[in-house]
Amino acid sequence: MNWNPQAPSPMPSHRYRPYTDRVQVPPTERSWPSNRTTVAPLWVPVDLRDGNQALAEPMDPARKRRFFEHLIAMGYKEIEVGYPSASQTDFDFVRDLATLGLVPDDVTVVVFTAARTDLIERTFESVRGLPNVVLHMYTATAPTWRSVVLGRDRDELHRLIFDAAQDVARCGDTAAGVRYEFSPEVFNLTEPDFVLEVCNSLTELWDACRDRPVIHNLPATVEIATPNVYADQIEYMHRHLDRRDSVILSVHPHNDRGTGVAAAELAVLAGAQRVEGCLFGNGERTGNVDLVTLGLNLHAQGVDPMIDFSDLDAVRRTVEYCNRISVHERHPYGGDLVYTAFSGTHQDAIKKGLAQHRAEARAEGTDPDLAPWDVPYLPIDPRDVGRDYEAVIRVNSQSGKGGIAYLLLSGYGIDLPRGLQIDFARRVQRTADDSGAEVTAQQLWDLLLAEYGNHGELARWAVEHREDGDRLRIEATVGGAPVEGAATASGPVEALTRILSEHGREVEVLSLVAQSVSEGSDGRAITFARCRIDGGTRWGVGLDSSVTASALESVLAAVAGTA
Amino acid sequence: MNWNPQAPSPMPSHRYRPYTDRVQVPPTERSWPSNRTTVAPLWVPVDLRDGNQALAEPMDPARKRRFFEHLIAMGYKEIEVGYPSASQTDFDFVRDLATLGLVPDDVTVVVFTAARTDLIERTFESVRGLPNVVLHMYTATAPTWRSVVLGRDRDELHRLIFDAAQDVARCGDTAAGVRYEFSPEVFNLTEPDFVLEVCNSLTELWDACRDRPVIHNLPATVEIATPNVYADQIEYMHRHLDRRDSVILSVHPHNDRGTGVAAAELAVLAGAQRVEGCLFGNGERTGNVDLVTLGLNLHAQGVDPMIDFSDLDAVRRTVEYCNRISVHERHPYGGDLVYTAFSGTHQDAIKKGLAQHRAEARAEGTDPDLAPWDVPYLPIDPRDVGRDYEAVIRVNSQSGKGGIAYLLLSGYGIDLPRGLQIDFARRVQRTADDSGAEVTAQQLWDLLLAEYGNHGELARWAVEHREDGDRLRIEATVGGAPVEGAATASGPVEALTRILSEHGREVEVLSLVAQSVSEGSDGRAITFARCRIDGGTRWGVGLDSSVTASALESVLAAVAGTA
Repeated sequence: MNWNPQAPSPMPSHRYRPYTDRVQVPPTERSWPSNRTTVAPLWVPVDLRDGNQALAEPMDPARKRRFFEHLIAMGYKEIEVGYPSASQTDFDFVRDLATLGLVPDDVTVVVFTAARTDLIERTFESVRGLPNVVLHMYTATAPTWRSVVLGRDRDELHRLIFDAAQDVARCGDTAAGVRYEFSPEVFNLTEPDFVLEVCNSLTELWDACRDRPVIHNLPATVEIATPNVYADQIEYMHRHLDRRDSVILSVHPHNDRGTGVAAAELAVLAGAQRVEGCLFGNGERTGNVDLVTLGLNLHAQGVDPMIDFSDLDAVRRTVEYCNRISVHERHPYGGDLVYTAFSGTHQDAIKKGLAQHRAEARAEGTDPDLAPWDVPYLPIDPRDVGRDYEAVIRVNSQSGKGGIAYLLLSGYGIDLPRGLQIDFARRVQRTADDSGAEVTAQQLWDLLLAEYGNHGELARWAVEHREDGDRLRIEATVGGAPVEGAATASGPVEALTRILSEHGREVEVLSLVAQSVSEGSDGRAITFARCRIDGGTRWGVGLDSSVTASALESVLAAVAGTA
Repeated sequence: MNWNPQAPSPMPSHRYRPYTDRVQVPPTERSWPSNRTTVAPLWVPVDLRDGNQALAEPMDPARKRRFFEHLIAMGYKEIEVGYPSASQTDFDFVRDLATLGLVPDDVTVVVFTAARTDLIERTFESVRGLPNVVLHMYTATAPTWRSVVLGRDRDELHRLIFDAAQDVARCGDTAAGVRYEFSPEVFNLTEPDFVLEVCNSLTELWDACRDRPVIHNLPATVEIATPNVYADQIEYMHRHLDRRDSVILSVHPHNDRGTGVAAAELAVLAGAQRVEGCLFGNGERTGNVDLVTLGLNLHAQGVDPMIDFSDLDAVRRTVEYCNRISVHERHPYGGDLVYTAFSGTHQDAIKKGLAQHRAEARAEGTDPDLAPWDVPYLPIDPRDVGRDYEAVIRVNSQSGKGGIAYLLLSGYGIDLPRGLQIDFARRVQRTADDSGAEVTAQQLWDLLLAEYGNHGELARWAVEHREDGDRLRIEATVGGAPVEGAATASGPVEALTRILSEHGREVEVLSLVAQSVSEGSDGRAITFARCRIDGGTRWGVGLDSSVTASALESVLAAVAGTA
């Protein structure tokens, strides 16, 4: 048999060359697939520059400042703040940082510039008075850019870059804390030997040393291959850059293929020490790599991200306000739906996992919020980032008993007996199937009473405790028929079964569970009765301010259900 | 110096164990990093099952049918259609597929079931009459799931799975085209030897052979490590599964770490032949792996995805309608912003790249839509997927001359001279900096006339062609002052400069470019004049239905600008 009958599509895929035809990675010993990341790299948010230039409405000065201050509060120590030679807004913002003293002593600001004398001079002008500065110069180096955009061959372009780097060295006061960064833009499509030639010449020109390392930032400006190829390219550079201990190897992945996060992670395995990206992945086209996901991916591996994500919703609010672009519902860690479980098996597993987590923490005497985490379907405890599993659990036609039970527990403080969970889940599913919509805790509660409650009336009742037992007198209607009488037994419920028997209703109470309802402050009790009636088992639910009445109601309800 | 002053965060990362403590991948020869994908795997959309169960409002029957039919139209040949034993809606939908004959002969439907006799029987009931069916049975196999959720040890769980698989074999009529799939859910956290033990026992029980292979689907139900680890796990299974030529190795990645696409791609390099996922990555929490991105990533490598993505907006509309979840602006290939360039350098490079692309196609006599593609910042031609670069280009304060020129060209058919592009870009940037907002083609046009047009009046003019040259008579106001007179010269513009000279306005016209304006049908002409006035260079723009008048206006405008 032909298990794969897929047929050629009309897509003109022949227009594209595989990456192997576009970039050659020289053979090198490949160690990255066996490495593991145990410390966070240096994170450099470029939201105020690369992210900002990709917005339909760039940030105004107030937004820039809010974003910058939030980055500082989260713990970022190196922040690219703008492209001052290209935008007056950026220039003014950098001047504000300097003159208003907004930059803490341990924070470095990065300013971006093209490789042209006047722009470099203007950039240095913008950072006057700032203590820790990285001047970041870029030039596109890939063949298509050289021929189509810049009209320069390799040697001419190298000369252009070198001349500009001399301007940088001339203007920059390294004694005053200025360092240098170079980005061969579109590194991932540039010949590796050309990148080495250019980068190594700047390492020497700028006199990189351990005390004042030079940053070589190697962007995947447009993603063009699976992320393992980028890792190979980075490992090659890692092994071949001159004065390696005086060079900070930085990466700057974009996300055109949806693999920006993977590219950054594999690049760090391959030797990268610094990662440029944006919060929640803003940036041109599909965005820059997402620094939130990268940080929390480390956290989930037991590695301190060195960034505070404990109030992720606040981070998200700032980013959404400044960028005017929302974070998607399914965005890792920060999306609205990512701590939600819809399917019944997931809900059931999470419920069991959470119960076990709490029990183990209790047994160990530790705070559940700090105890080791291993709960199914929740890769991290939502509380680590200020989120909540309870707040977002929902039930629909695909949900099973776990989610239903959980909603009733969190919404009303009641713990459905397991047998009732199963029976009720079937009825919920039938209802949900009909409407196709999500079910709320309120709807579940209403449905529970509609399905299992007594729709008759417990008009009057009294219990008298006597020497021979409890004497119950009752006036009620059950399934439309009147039930009146009195009987004495070991308890009121047994007395009720005798009265019912006298009315020709045989009922055996198999179990009775009473709980208080937390919702509202009226202190009502709910009782779940499992009864054998006419050879079958039925559930009844009673709700009353009196525990006794709720128990009587539950049995009457079970009987009414058979009518 | 300390180039990385990052400090420990308050995140409780110690709660988590690294993946190396949670899953052991036995050492194996690792070939996947050197492999390349040259044919598309078998794609299996699970939107109607795994995607659907993660929706706040599951699809109604009409939505299910629309989604199914769109998948068929795109070329998918194996489609998971539901979990019929868990949902009446799903059961009814599968019955509809069978009784209404909605499944083409070359398409296989997959139905999902837990490993329990009654559910398996109900599942087989749902597919009666369908020609090509895969019965997909799953059980979670990872240690935490075994102990916390299922309460079974390895042997007990293996027995449960094996017993259920016997039910499957008993109920399934393999002669009638039924095949079997098994998913050890949470494969990526399960001991590899246990997975092999279970899978191999089913391969034998179900008597897998080349003509009727068994599918072993190995889910990363919750992502827990960098994607290279998943690839290692898959390569290990690829090398150790029994009857390898009778087993279809399938993967099912989720996206908790934002690396689902990478995990699928590296898994295919490692030996996976089949990929389960959802269009645009719907699914529990962060979603299933996105089949659109995976397919178009192959396309961009010159490999036919075997799926028709040529009208991606239609795909997106169907998915958004059925799921009631939008596709994010920056979602690879399908997002609103991914063929937009905001930054000036990008716009300039794209403009040059597109011009070169068209010129080369013209020179080769080929259709530009089919010619090889290598345009900066656009990894694929947007037209491949029915999108457009022109439609979405925007200009803001970070944009340079390229984007501005492009907008005026596409909106008004006018091609600004290069010098004017540079001058105008500065003025646009100043305006955009003030408002912070995006600039439209209309606004650019208005600004161009406001900045460079003549705000006086060309009340009357006449040109008489005579033997000694063109005699121009004119009545105008320039910068508030009247200009009247007549002069004869080699052309009207030269005559105008003489008249202006008589009024004490010395002007030398350095260049004059006239074009017709495409916008509207009034056939107006626009003229750009570059003039030397008072030792400086100034641009003037004239707009009129007459080419001569537009030329005269342009010079008057340049003069007015100096007033």
